[in-house]
Amino acid sequence: MDLVDLFKSKKIGDKVKLEGWIRNNRDQKEFGFIDFFDGTCLKSLQLVYDNKLDNFKEVCHYHVGSSIVVDGELVKSNGKQDIELKVEKIELLDDADEDYPIQPKRHSMEFLRSVSYLRSRTKTFQAVFRVRNVVSFAIHEYFQNNNYLYVHTPLVTACDCEGSNQMFKVSTFDFDNIPVDKDGKVDFSKDLFGKQAFITGSGQLHGEAFAMSFKKIYTFGPTFRTENSNTKVHANEFWMIEPEIAFCDINGVMDIEEDMLKFVVQRVLDKCPDEIDFFDSFVEKGLREKLEKLVKSKFKKITHKEAIDLLKKAKVKFEFKPEYGEDLAKEHEKYITEYFNSPVFIYNWPKDIKAWYMKENSDGETVAAVDLEVPGAGELIGGSEREVDLEVLNRKIKEFGVDKESIDWYINLRRFGNCYHSGFGLGLDRLLMYVTGIENIRDVIPFPRTPGNCEY
Amino acid sequence: MDLVDLFKSKKIGDKVKLEGWIRNNRDQKEFGFIDFFDGTCLKSLQLVYDNKLDNFKEVCHYHVGSSIVVDGELVKSNGKQDIELKVEKIELLDDADEDYPIQPKRHSMEFLRSVSYLRSRTKTFQAVFRVRNVVSFAIHEYFQNNNYLYVHTPLVTACDCEGSNQMFKVSTFDFDNIPVDKDGKVDFSKDLFGKQAFITGSGQLHGEAFAMSFKKIYTFGPTFRTENSNTKVHANEFWMIEPEIAFCDINGVMDIEEDMLKFVVQRVLDKCPDEIDFFDSFVEKGLREKLEKLVKSKFKKITHKEAIDLLKKAKVKFEFKPEYGEDLAKEHEKYITEYFNSPVFIYNWPKDIKAWYMKENSDGETVAAVDLEVPGAGELIGGSEREVDLEVLNRKIKEFGVDKESIDWYINLRRFGNCYHSGFGLGLDRLLMYVTGIENIRDVIPFPRTPGNCEY
Repeated sequence: MDLVDLFKSKKIGDKVKLEGWIRNNRDQKEFGFIDFFDGTCLKSLQLVYDNKLDNFKEVCHYHVGSSIVVDGELVKSNGKQDIELKVEKIELLDDADEDYPIQPKRHSMEFLRSVSYLRSRTKTFQAVFRVRNVVSFAIHEYFQNNNYLYVHTPLVTACDCEGSNQMFKVSTFDFDNIPVDKDGKVDFSKDLFGKQAFITGSGQLHGEAFAMSFKKIYTFGPTFRTENSNTKVHANEFWMIEPEIAFCDINGVMDIEEDMLKFVVQRVLDKCPDEIDFFDSFVEKGLREKLEKLVKSKFKKITHKEAIDLLKKAKVKFEFKPEYGEDLAKEHEKYITEYFNSPVFIYNWPKDIKAWYMKENSDGETVAAVDLEVPGAGELIGGSEREVDLEVLNRKIKEFGVDKESIDWYINLRRFGNCYHSGFGLGLDRLLMYVTGIENIRDVIPFPRTPGNCEY
Repeated sequence: MDLVDLFKSKKIGDKVKLEGWIRNNRDQKEFGFIDFFDGTCLKSLQLVYDNKLDNFKEVCHYHVGSSIVVDGELVKSNGKQDIELKVEKIELLDDADEDYPIQPKRHSMEFLRSVSYLRSRTKTFQAVFRVRNVVSFAIHEYFQNNNYLYVHTPLVTACDCEGSNQMFKVSTFDFDNIPVDKDGKVDFSKDLFGKQAFITGSGQLHGEAFAMSFKKIYTFGPTFRTENSNTKVHANEFWMIEPEIAFCDINGVMDIEEDMLKFVVQRVLDKCPDEIDFFDSFVEKGLREKLEKLVKSKFKKITHKEAIDLLKKAKVKFEFKPEYGEDLAKEHEKYITEYFNSPVFIYNWPKDIKAWYMKENSDGETVAAVDLEVPGAGELIGGSEREVDLEVLNRKIKEFGVDKESIDWYINLRRFGNCYHSGFGLGLDRLLMYVTGIENIRDVIPFPRTPGNCEY
């Protein structure tokens, strides 16, 4: 049986059979204790064995990390937990060699990154990846509960509307023998798709097409950026959720983001109490309070202009001077979320610093874009109402130098049953950093991909 | 409000406001009917308007495909449905130009593929993609209900254990200017990851590492193959679910596959009655009966040898002669599923025709692999127990010419808390073909990618 079910439904006196691994094994002359886990919950179970076992001596020497199968009876424990298992029979399935890197001591995160195929067995990563699982499913639940359609937008694309420098190229060519045409240029007609192809950094454009068919949709999949940044918050492969909602304006999309985020965080609080306690103790003091507060708070909404007003009035010496028409620095975001002591939506951004597909406001200077800033983590979600005025859209495409031909179909959406609509992008990995308190994106991704790092 | 909620909770006499699109508009002298949908359910609602409306004349000319917002009262209908909406106010949000390709008539699937950004508005594709959504969420539900951890295995990888010819290469290089080293060979150290990178065709190896940490895991994500096949069942980008279960043998994995498939199909029957009726009427006669039967049937289990025995005894003239030690042809699969009149697991396959990581049986000739064959669709799921004998694994890696260095970590899993384990791969798109009766994989994928085809 799974350990998680044992803790849920079994009681003292019950006989159980378990399979799993040894986290620690301490033997004394006549008895010993095994700290046992099977990965189905964060809690481990103490196994108590004594010299009445035929194989007592061997059991005493079972290594940390070994896999075992055990039969026994649940008894009252005097230790930290209510119950422990009195071992009646125990067998080694397979040993862990003595050079097993995960020993019962504190390992640095850097070291654990170097053994990322094994680090998921440590308590920290058991907690991280269980929360990742709960957050992912909660996101699905939220959108399914609210009539959204989950859509698989394509990863391979020929549209280079993000600028092909920011996208990975995909090809079946042998790089040592790339076919060229008579002018010596790469002959992409010989590649599998008959043209140059990329891995997309966003499913938004395709998502919009589906929102024009199903009203409310969301994507949930991996995305890729070629950014050569070695920071704590950048990875080249990460997972994104991109909802798109027809008949929804900028205000509507803020309400949806708030509602979704509260739902997801509440699910984590409900389903991962042990994990949150663990992070609260060992990773970010006050994490539980932060999350409980987020669920209860009413998110604040201010315009970019109001944000700058506030910053200009602030009695703080900023490294970067806040300016109308310009982006916010990390320190500004921090000041604002601390000022309101709650998550803050900042909307109506200067149009020149935001993307071409965002709706231009009637002031001619701002777009209906919105960033959600949360205390302690900065920007968590970016969204906008989309430009649906065909004339304005065509002008913006020109101004931003977007390749019009590759997105003629997207533009056509404005000719066929056009309607106001909005959407947003939520980076799963950054949300996890916020929810767990883990500070490096490499430590919330099972096998992270960053510049120079494509191990495992 | 969403149309799906209206049908669930509203009754005659209720006033509602709706936003959506016109599927058809038929006007007569003094009144007219709009076939209205909003994409949240397959059903459309009939809007009845009359010349008491100020804008009656304009409404009569609203084009098919236009977006509208409408207020009205639900009244009893004499038509096919119980209710219709008596329009009190109706406004055009935006027109659909007259060249809108989706007119209320029968379009060929080929034509609809050529407008895949709009085809999702047709009844057929509304049904297909809604079932795709329900199937996807049901798969998550099944695994979440049973203590599995959802894990995001990486897509970018440097392991070419599948054979790099079958994987797309990813790169940030400008293909017209690929850097070379002093020997004239491509200098991958200058690429973003510092080495040649691929897009993986499977998350299995990484999934195994996580199963050795969390006992039961599953992946759910896009996968890629470079196969240059223009068939009805091949796409270059498709979605796969790859569960992996520690302490589970070949028999256990068959039971899990059966249990999961029945759960998912039952969910479709429960949540998509209208869609299944639609497919039953217009796509595959008898579809509902086929699905209901699958849920009730007990799947048969036979070995590959038993399958060949059966085929050799069959009073049928096969094009390909069935042989021990060889693969099964489509016609053989068909005969077997029809013979048993139920889904059939075929297990213990000749080792030479199966993958290197599958567990070699004690007969020295077969591996503990299992394919699930279903009536009318052939192979739906492929799985196996994994080779966990370090010596055998090393020999197989050599025999199959797998690059050992890139998977040393995978091999190491056998040294650190090794245990018997099994897993399988379910192709989401093929499952959808089975569940909807749609015959071409291009028609169950939102924006399909096949050789020479990377539009939209």
